[in-house]
Amino acid sequence: MIVVMQTAAEKEQVEGVETKLAGMGFAPHRIQGTGRVVIGAVGESKIVFPTGLEVLPGVEKVVPISAPYKLVSREVKENGSIVKIGDIRIGGDEIVVMAGPCAVESEEQLMTIAGLVKAAGAQVLRGGAYKPRSSPYSFQGLELDGLKMLNRAREETGLKIVTEVLNPQEVELVADYTDVIQIGARNMQNFSLLREVGRTGMPVMLKRGLAATLEEWLMAAEYILAEDNFQVILCERGIRTFETSTRSTLDISAIPQAKSMTHLPVIADPCHSSGTWRLASPLSRAAIAAGADGLLIEVHHQPSEALCDGPQSLAPEKFSRLLFSLQPVAEAVGRRVCTGEDLSMTGGV
Amino acid sequence: MIVVMQTAAEKEQVEGVETKLAGMGFAPHRIQGTGRVVIGAVGESKIVFPTGLEVLPGVEKVVPISAPYKLVSREVKENGSIVKIGDIRIGGDEIVVMAGPCAVESEEQLMTIAGLVKAAGAQVLRGGAYKPRSSPYSFQGLELDGLKMLNRAREETGLKIVTEVLNPQEVELVADYTDVIQIGARNMQNFSLLREVGRTGMPVMLKRGLAATLEEWLMAAEYILAEDNFQVILCERGIRTFETSTRSTLDISAIPQAKSMTHLPVIADPCHSSGTWRLASPLSRAAIAAGADGLLIEVHHQPSEALCDGPQSLAPEKFSRLLFSLQPVAEAVGRRVCTGEDLSMTGGV
Amino acid sequence: MIVVMQTAAEKEQVEGVETKLAGMGFAPHRIQGTGRVVIGAVGESKIVFPTGLEVLPGVEKVVPISAPYKLVSREVKENGSIVKIGDIRIGGDEIVVMAGPCAVESEEQLMTIAGLVKAAGAQVLRGGAYKPRSSPYSFQGLELDGLKMLNRAREETGLKIVTEVLNPQEVELVADYTDVIQIGARNMQNFSLLREVGRTGMPVMLKRGLAATLEEWLMAAEYILAEDNFQVILCERGIRTFETSTRSTLDISAIPQAKSMTHLPVIADPCHSSGTWRLASPLSRAAIAAGADGLLIEVHHQPSEALCDGPQSLAPEKFSRLLFSLQPVAEAVGRRVCTGEDLSMTGGV
Amino acid sequence: MIVVMQTAAEKEQVEGVETKLAGMGFAPHRIQGTGRVVIGAVGESKIVFPTGLEVLPGVEKVVPISAPYKLVSREVKENGSIVKIGDIRIGGDEIVVMAGPCAVESEEQLMTIAGLVKAAGAQVLRGGAYKPRSSPYSFQGLELDGLKMLNRAREETGLKIVTEVLNPQEVELVADYTDVIQIGARNMQNFSLLREVGRTGMPVMLKRGLAATLEEWLMAAEYILAEDNFQVILCERGIRTFETSTRSTLDISAIPQAKSMTHLPVIADPCHSSGTWRLASPLSRAAIAAGADGLLIEVHHQPSEALCDGPQSLAPEKFSRLLFSLQPVAEAVGRRVCTGEDLSMTGGV
Repeated sequence: MIVVMQTAAEKEQVEGVETKLAGMGFAPHRIQGTGRVVIGAVGESKIVFPTGLEVLPGVEKVVPISAPYKLVSREVKENGSIVKIGDIRIGGDEIVVMAGPCAVESEEQLMTIAGLVKAAGAQVLRGGAYKPRSSPYSFQGLELDGLKMLNRAREETGLKIVTEVLNPQEVELVADYTDVIQIGARNMQNFSLLREVGRTGMPVMLKRGLAATLEEWLMAAEYILAEDNFQVILCERGIRTFETSTRSTLDISAIPQAKSMTHLPVIADPCHSSGTWRLASPLSRAAIAAGADGLLIEVHHQPSEALCDGPQSLAPEKFSRLLFSLQPVAEAVGRRVCTGEDLSMTGGV
Repeated sequence: MIVVMQTAAEKEQVEGVETKLAGMGFAPHRIQGTGRVVIGAVGESKIVFPTGLEVLPGVEKVVPISAPYKLVSREVKENGSIVKIGDIRIGGDEIVVMAGPCAVESEEQLMTIAGLVKAAGAQVLRGGAYKPRSSPYSFQGLELDGLKMLNRAREETGLKIVTEVLNPQEVELVADYTDVIQIGARNMQNFSLLREVGRTGMPVMLKRGLAATLEEWLMAAEYILAEDNFQVILCERGIRTFETSTRSTLDISAIPQAKSMTHLPVIADPCHSSGTWRLASPLSRAAIAAGADGLLIEVHHQPSEALCDGPQSLAPEKFSRLLFSLQPVAEAVGRRVCTGEDLSMTGGV
Repeated sequence: MIVVMQTAAEKEQVEGVETKLAGMGFAPHRIQGTGRVVIGAVGESKIVFPTGLEVLPGVEKVVPISAPYKLVSREVKENGSIVKIGDIRIGGDEIVVMAGPCAVESEEQLMTIAGLVKAAGAQVLRGGAYKPRSSPYSFQGLELDGLKMLNRAREETGLKIVTEVLNPQEVELVADYTDVIQIGARNMQNFSLLREVGRTGMPVMLKRGLAATLEEWLMAAEYILAEDNFQVILCERGIRTFETSTRSTLDISAIPQAKSMTHLPVIADPCHSSGTWRLASPLSRAAIAAGADGLLIEVHHQPSEALCDGPQSLAPEKFSRLLFSLQPVAEAVGRRVCTGEDLSMTGGV
Repeated sequence: MIVVMQTAAEKEQVEGVETKLAGMGFAPHRIQGTGRVVIGAVGESKIVFPTGLEVLPGVEKVVPISAPYKLVSREVKENGSIVKIGDIRIGGDEIVVMAGPCAVESEEQLMTIAGLVKAAGAQVLRGGAYKPRSSPYSFQGLELDGLKMLNRAREETGLKIVTEVLNPQEVELVADYTDVIQIGARNMQNFSLLREVGRTGMPVMLKRGLAATLEEWLMAAEYILAEDNFQVILCERGIRTFETSTRSTLDISAIPQAKSMTHLPVIADPCHSSGTWRLASPLSRAAIAAGADGLLIEVHHQPSEALCDGPQSLAPEKFSRLLFSLQPVAEAVGRRVCTGEDLSMTGGV
């Protein structure tokens, strides 16, 4: 930590800061510049983010040097982590595709889509039983019934399941029915929820908040790791910017940047970020080219009938074509992606 | 709702949209333009936000016309609502000041500050017992002990209490100890929490999310009103932008703009938005001049010792001076603000 | 400047940085922390923004300490500057109102509006002869004819003139016809233009760019001052954010924040920032309450016929009422605003 | 265009809007909804962006339907355009790499880098002779001398040249020495400059402004096309967002999105957008995977000595390795990229 004094700071003010730093367990190192004094604080204080310094007389600003996150940092663990979902490994050579509907709408809908995404090569089935909706009047999910349907889909297809939890009280229940617990963008800083999913010890997929910096995203992950749960997958899903022609802005730089800061695997959600299935293919390819460890893709067999997010859902044959197009891109960066039947060829859908 | 067809849309595609609209309960009105067809959908469908239309062949985009919020709208209730906290009225002629520390740290700290803010003219005491902190290693609040201290401060000073709740499971508990329940910016779209506080029937202060549009903010309030709880106070606390010289950007326009869209009262938080006590005074004056119904201000008797948000906390004598400076601004816009003792004159602190 | 080394940096890398710093004219001060080395660079190097350091092996980041602006800084000139336009003083006790149409459309239009804004209390007439328009097919201004009309309006009413220049080649011409040269938001970093207007020695009103940080804005002003022209007025006119219910977001904090960083006067443009005349009054009041030294307001006698920016133009009687409403706000912050005839009472328009 | 009336609008107000629309050359089509009236305006009025409607009594908002750009639109020209620079084709199967230093610093520097980037496979040499710098005290470029050096580099290496112009007065001069004229991000809405480069008839590379929407970017290109110059290459170079860990945010979605809106080719600048050479490789690969037609990359043989943008400049051997890594990605999307000698193997630099 560096304390930058005002140019007009007096000797007593500088000494006041040094005394305060010493009291916090830091060794202060004064640097007398031409215009002002700068004080370096050395040591590992137990006081995280000490904020009192900024209000001491004569202080202009405090510049933190160490990153506030610890367990998620590459400095703590140099090699990339692999999160295992059964025998699926996220963060290894294989790029894992998670696909399915925005919401579980009915058993028939879910089974149909599960079969199709499995045939196309997906390894994990996504689908919301609890839906965070901007409007209280929108479809809010089938809740427990939805969880049971996901469970049946798992049994029938062998796909692993990822589904979102919204409420700390429901974590235990959701954990019983899923393989990966999803924390949505709106809940990235719902710290009660983060702690609760941390305690399950299960794999967690943590979406980046719409206005979260990389540092805040990693700090949210730190909440889960601090509960001794290292099974965290980060998911870049677009940030909010001024641009309105897409629903949000996929922060493609965040993929390699996050991977340089943390050992956790990072996947991308091209559908939510853009808000349109039309961009799903180029953005999926871009995410893999930038180093993503997986993709989360919305697929619906009847997008125009979907109860949510129809416009950004791929029809199954488009999803199948997408996976085939990803294969050479994955190879170009030394990885591979699982593909299945070419549904667009069978004309099946 | 207006459905804009592509310029190349075929007759059958236009008819397909019209059939779909009719099936949803709308009367479609076709407008044949020179370049394209546009279809107006008339009627009050029970289907909220129908999204399937965008994916029908030939559709370019769907433009909603009606606002998605209902109960919070000025169209539903023309006159401004007044939220009552005991005999304090938010939304009336008097501008209500809520003040206190970021976090309840100890009984002594809270009682000292409570006495000082009351003396200066505040009517409501703020203080966090449950703190949402970016880092799991930061002080997380005194929890139940903190609530009990707030209760004692209420008994001793007669101040009303506003405090934050983070977890749906804790709503009932927090409601027992507070007069106004605060939903923080990070939880603005924590819908489980919104529903739960809605059900208490108690006054709720809903902070705007860092990246929330006005519409999303009003939709979050709609969740509370939909539980038949109309006691909602909106709080503008700054949005996230590219500017880094302030912690966030107080969206001053949001105050009059929100008040034109909703009947709910709107207050402002100049401390969180700027991140520095230095801007608390000009921003408080600006908020009142723009039409705010109240202010939420952080006050600490020893800012450099505060366990959180010290840099943005006012020392009591500064707070007192601030309230005196607000009085003529309030009068200039036909309102008044309660002021108490001039602490800066007594040199009391 | 502080150079933060990587935790894994080797001794030779630290020495390499120190050697480089010494070669640049700095005295390096090494601080050995528990995890890493940090090097403070002391001295006033003639090298501005040395960027080569970041790419030296072992360097994690470089943290600048001194602000990059000099002449505009409060550290250089402690007291606020007053920019004089004839006998009008911007930055003093009186809040100066500049008003007029977006564009000069015709002699009749300009004379009508000039007379009305003068009667209402404005001291400077604004009006564009050269208009920067997003579309090449929109009205681009009357150019020289417009300048001549502005000149005639000045002669007839005694109002001072502010008008925008877009092209370095036209600076001399525009300077002949105006009292204040306006640099628009789109040209804030048009450095050729900044230098050219700097050389005229005339008062310049520099609008903040839509995505400009305060630091960049001050650096743009520095370009003008570096030409030995200290007559610069800063104008906050809204920044681009994610919010779409207003055209841009008036950064109210920027007014007191900029005034703490620079000695230059700061005015606000409530019309462009919001995009609607409906917010002109609350935002004007807020700007004054926050410390603005003046206002720039669009007025048109027939807003629905205006060739540009009609929706954000005030009708004259609204403008007159606005000025009357500003008077008590100005007084509340120890200032005053000039008001004239109450046009809304005379029913004149 | 759709005019949405207020719910409380009266019959006379609706008729007033219809009369106004008719006067503007539109045929008004009234749709009587359950809550309000909506009026569709049919026809191709010569009035672009009529803004007067919003201020008519009873009008809530005006929703434009047609895009404001014409010549750049895919609706006008369905097939992608190819911009030719000599025998290099931008927008065809081959991805074109433009590379070189941020600024031309000396003949020796330029010749060294030119030789290296050519050897690595670049087809166009970039290098600034006129530099837009945030600070007036930073290196501003060698100007005419720089242009002459670029010319010599062209003669010696056969590379084509792209260089930036800042001032309309210098367009003719710059045009004499370059093959492609670059308009930088800060000048995207410098309309005088756009018109001037349009008139040269030469290829223009138009960078997206830091806060420009796609629509504004296309409108800026429209200025050039409106001068009958269709040789425009768009360059996505990152937008300004709240994220601070990268210098700006490469809007990867903008590449496929812009290509769906316009027939113009789109390239990407991974160096400026991220501000660090560390992200140049993943972002270059991502841009190609997303459909970019070319790349603009900063290369310097001594990044730590560069007079500008050192941290984001690739050393030549890294540049060479990058081009080799792009080849399979380009092939994966059915394209190819030119590669040259493998400089990293020869250990040449």
